[in-house]
Amino acid sequence: MQRAAALVRLGCCPRTPGPWGRSQSSAAAEASAVLKVRPERSRRERILTLESMNPQVKAVEYAVRGPIVLKAGEIELELQRGIKKPFTEVIRANIGDAQAMGQQPITFLRQVMALCTYPNLLDSPSFPEDAKKRARRILQAWGGNSLGSYSASQGVNCIREDVAAYITRRDGGVPADPDNIYLTTGASDGISTILKILVSGGGKSRTGVMIPIPQYPLYSAVISELDAIQVNYYLDEENCWALNVNELRRAVQEAKDHCDPKVLCIINPGNPTGQVQSRKCIEDVIHFAWEEKLFLLADEVYQDNVYSPDCKFHSFKKVLYEMGPEYSSNVELASFHSTSKGYMGECGYRGGYMEVINLHPEIKGQLVKLLSVRLCPPVSGQAAMDIVVNPPVPGEESFELFHREKESVLGNLAKKAKLTEDLFNQVPGIHCNPLQGAMYAFPRIFIPSKAVEAAQAHKMAPDMFYCMKLLEETGICVVPGSGFGQREGTYHFRMTILPPVEKLKTVLQKVKDFHIKFLEKYA
Amino acid sequence: MQRAAALVRLGCCPRTPGPWGRSQSSAAAEASAVLKVRPERSRRERILTLESMNPQVKAVEYAVRGPIVLKAGEIELELQRGIKKPFTEVIRANIGDAQAMGQQPITFLRQVMALCTYPNLLDSPSFPEDAKKRARRILQAWGGNSLGSYSASQGVNCIREDVAAYITRRDGGVPADPDNIYLTTGASDGISTILKILVSGGGKSRTGVMIPIPQYPLYSAVISELDAIQVNYYLDEENCWALNVNELRRAVQEAKDHCDPKVLCIINPGNPTGQVQSRKCIEDVIHFAWEEKLFLLADEVYQDNVYSPDCKFHSFKKVLYEMGPEYSSNVELASFHSTSKGYMGECGYRGGYMEVINLHPEIKGQLVKLLSVRLCPPVSGQAAMDIVVNPPVPGEESFELFHREKESVLGNLAKKAKLTEDLFNQVPGIHCNPLQGAMYAFPRIFIPSKAVEAAQAHKMAPDMFYCMKLLEETGICVVPGSGFGQREGTYHFRMTILPPVEKLKTVLQKVKDFHIKFLEKYA
Repeated sequence: MQRAAALVRLGCCPRTPGPWGRSQSSAAAEASAVLKVRPERSRRERILTLESMNPQVKAVEYAVRGPIVLKAGEIELELQRGIKKPFTEVIRANIGDAQAMGQQPITFLRQVMALCTYPNLLDSPSFPEDAKKRARRILQAWGGNSLGSYSASQGVNCIREDVAAYITRRDGGVPADPDNIYLTTGASDGISTILKILVSGGGKSRTGVMIPIPQYPLYSAVISELDAIQVNYYLDEENCWALNVNELRRAVQEAKDHCDPKVLCIINPGNPTGQVQSRKCIEDVIHFAWEEKLFLLADEVYQDNVYSPDCKFHSFKKVLYEMGPEYSSNVELASFHSTSKGYMGECGYRGGYMEVINLHPEIKGQLVKLLSVRLCPPVSGQAAMDIVVNPPVPGEESFELFHREKESVLGNLAKKAKLTEDLFNQVPGIHCNPLQGAMYAFPRIFIPSKAVEAAQAHKMAPDMFYCMKLLEETGICVVPGSGFGQREGTYHFRMTILPPVEKLKTVLQKVKDFHIKFLEKYA
Repeated sequence: MQRAAALVRLGCCPRTPGPWGRSQSSAAAEASAVLKVRPERSRRERILTLESMNPQVKAVEYAVRGPIVLKAGEIELELQRGIKKPFTEVIRANIGDAQAMGQQPITFLRQVMALCTYPNLLDSPSFPEDAKKRARRILQAWGGNSLGSYSASQGVNCIREDVAAYITRRDGGVPADPDNIYLTTGASDGISTILKILVSGGGKSRTGVMIPIPQYPLYSAVISELDAIQVNYYLDEENCWALNVNELRRAVQEAKDHCDPKVLCIINPGNPTGQVQSRKCIEDVIHFAWEEKLFLLADEVYQDNVYSPDCKFHSFKKVLYEMGPEYSSNVELASFHSTSKGYMGECGYRGGYMEVINLHPEIKGQLVKLLSVRLCPPVSGQAAMDIVVNPPVPGEESFELFHREKESVLGNLAKKAKLTEDLFNQVPGIHCNPLQGAMYAFPRIFIPSKAVEAAQAHKMAPDMFYCMKLLEETGICVVPGSGFGQREGTYHFRMTILPPVEKLKTVLQKVKDFHIKFLEKYA
């Protein structure tokens, strides 16, 4: 049972032993700087050390909040202490955290949540009637009519019904069953829960989980934690990060030598890559999953974030049903949504749902059992999810304001997606695919060989070295491509497009200036 | 790597293969009844089945929301459909869910949370100034001054500072460091996270986790999930469920043949047993942990729930420091608190914290890394935790109301604890230890051998059979002792004391009548 030793990695996503995907010493140094380590006084050996800890947890990496973010925190503290820098603030473009970037909450959503939190407000004339109606409906579903009670482990019934109705509308009438809906603590929780149930076997029978490269590092982190086998399939950068089924075939064939590929994860719209999959591509993927007997995980948290006029979001569920009964009654699918992204950007409340299709009834029982150990998803996240799937409709008092706020956020995001693509592509040595959806740019950057050598001297991945320099010189915090995975010898970074338009322009200009200087320095 | 096969269980806590701790067939039948299984049409074999799923997840049991609760749900549906029963409502005394039982939220807590949720209310004259002050302080700590942003993965700084100040006050000046505080998604999340990091090794080196029997089944569930080795130590029922260090010694010695005992879990005040540990007992436990090199987990979520005038809550942290530097700089301790219990009973928001002592700095880095994968604990739970540790003080506008509400809840609980003990002990064949703290009775029940035979005929544990009959005949839902573990041949159930006094009296009377009838029937 030496699990870490049994960890087999496929593809060329480089793995380092440190806690944050870099060399241990530098990451530890950083952690100690932040954690204010005191001198040790004649201490016994610790029970829990890097040597004795769970090796699977040690193997976990999560770049989005990794060393670059620790460094950003240190710099912020230095700025607060008055230490002079070539900039006055750190811009955290590392994470899709809309409201931290100044996006205002959707008024209706917060009104309903405030009413649920403090029901005395139901008597207040300053809240609209439609918000009160929603709040009353949510409250009556909770024990003691209070959000202070636990809900059912699967999530409160009436919200699961609203989610099912939303999916049915979204998918043009393809039915959704509230019994198949599980409310979650953000999408991350749903994804890791279903993976936890799926992983089994040892040696060559160990479960293989196929993930796109570049990927959102939740996937690789959970795969490490569960000691499953990560099976990489590469998105096609030359073709706007499209998913090619031939690449899936290559990956699954090679994986069969090492493990039992059982799960196929799709992120659509893509994170960090922003591509929106065509209907044809989704059909091909579903057919492939059917053929290869793979359990499908469709991460669709950016379903409202589609900007390219030529692109449209198609849910895996809808395409599955339209492909006919052989697929719709056989392919096992879990799809995920979240309150954190879209136009609402309610990250903090940790709301989300998972819809499962063709899950064996006994497994549903197992799933509810597993969820029940953690009692229930946070009630405020559940309530927020309800407003996302059950927003004001034409004729309701709050509709006009809601619609205006929603369109304003999405319209701005579309503008910023185009702006970012255009500006990056004006910089020599940067190439950026169109941002069809989601909320990130993932430009490819040219790193001169002298800079690669300098990075190696610092025991850093070249793009980590690049991003550290960018942070130190401009205050802009982005995540190196190595944290998401990329083809060997290529370098990228992920940057959110969430700052307000004017600020985003400044950020892009600063990246441009930095990049040109960087190329000159390491020419 | 056949992990399930390697699972060695110690002690006599019976394990069954079903998903809810009973025979598979009956649990599955129940699950299907609830999940409305449709007839299968010419389906391919599923990828995810009971046979192919993660065997560690299959081994998980969680009685508090197990088959008895599924049955309660079915009965509620039947009542709604007008089916006649010998009762008109189901009383869910299975879970410590105070507000579902009618307990009112603490006004100040909800006011602050409503202000944080919908900051427009900061202009409203109907909210007190001290609540506004708290809300402003919490909001300024979040990116964009909005609870919609992610917080730091460890929890927002100012709330961790408030937690540290609370602990310092509580422990009479023993210092607490905000760097050692991790905000969590309820206490369950903290406990499973720290256990996840602690578990390692294979075969006889596999980590052994010592837990009390009876235990709160989160522990056994997480141990199953992590494929760790459960090491049972028995609380002394004859001695008011006290923890005896000799029993710890027996358990650890026997365990060393099978595994590497590395963790000792303590629940104080006890769940389900309600005992409050004496200072002497805590000292003995700490000395034992020091001696045996065990990492201590102190589950102290009921620290505000102490009722017996002879008992007082002592935190492990405080006793550890008072024992001198050999202990306070060597013993590794994680202790847990929650917003769900105490006098506030805010279960739904999923708030909690963990304090770690003597955690290796490198492990702290690993912990933050692991937490960062799930981004952050729910912000509303963090805000609720802040009010619990930073409530109104004398002189503040809201103090008087807050104090009255708090004392009313705790006073009532103390009354109900005594009432429950007294009434149970009047019933022949029921013995109930004093409820010194927490919010449950865990009475021992005599089950006649004819009833044991009848239970075996139904493939049920005798106390499950008893609790099912109680539910079917009275509508009262309690959890069988077998879900918590108990000495072989003894039977118990856990019942909350949360219903309002008059209702609790009725409940107790009904249990009494049922028990007498049950004894007669199976005499």
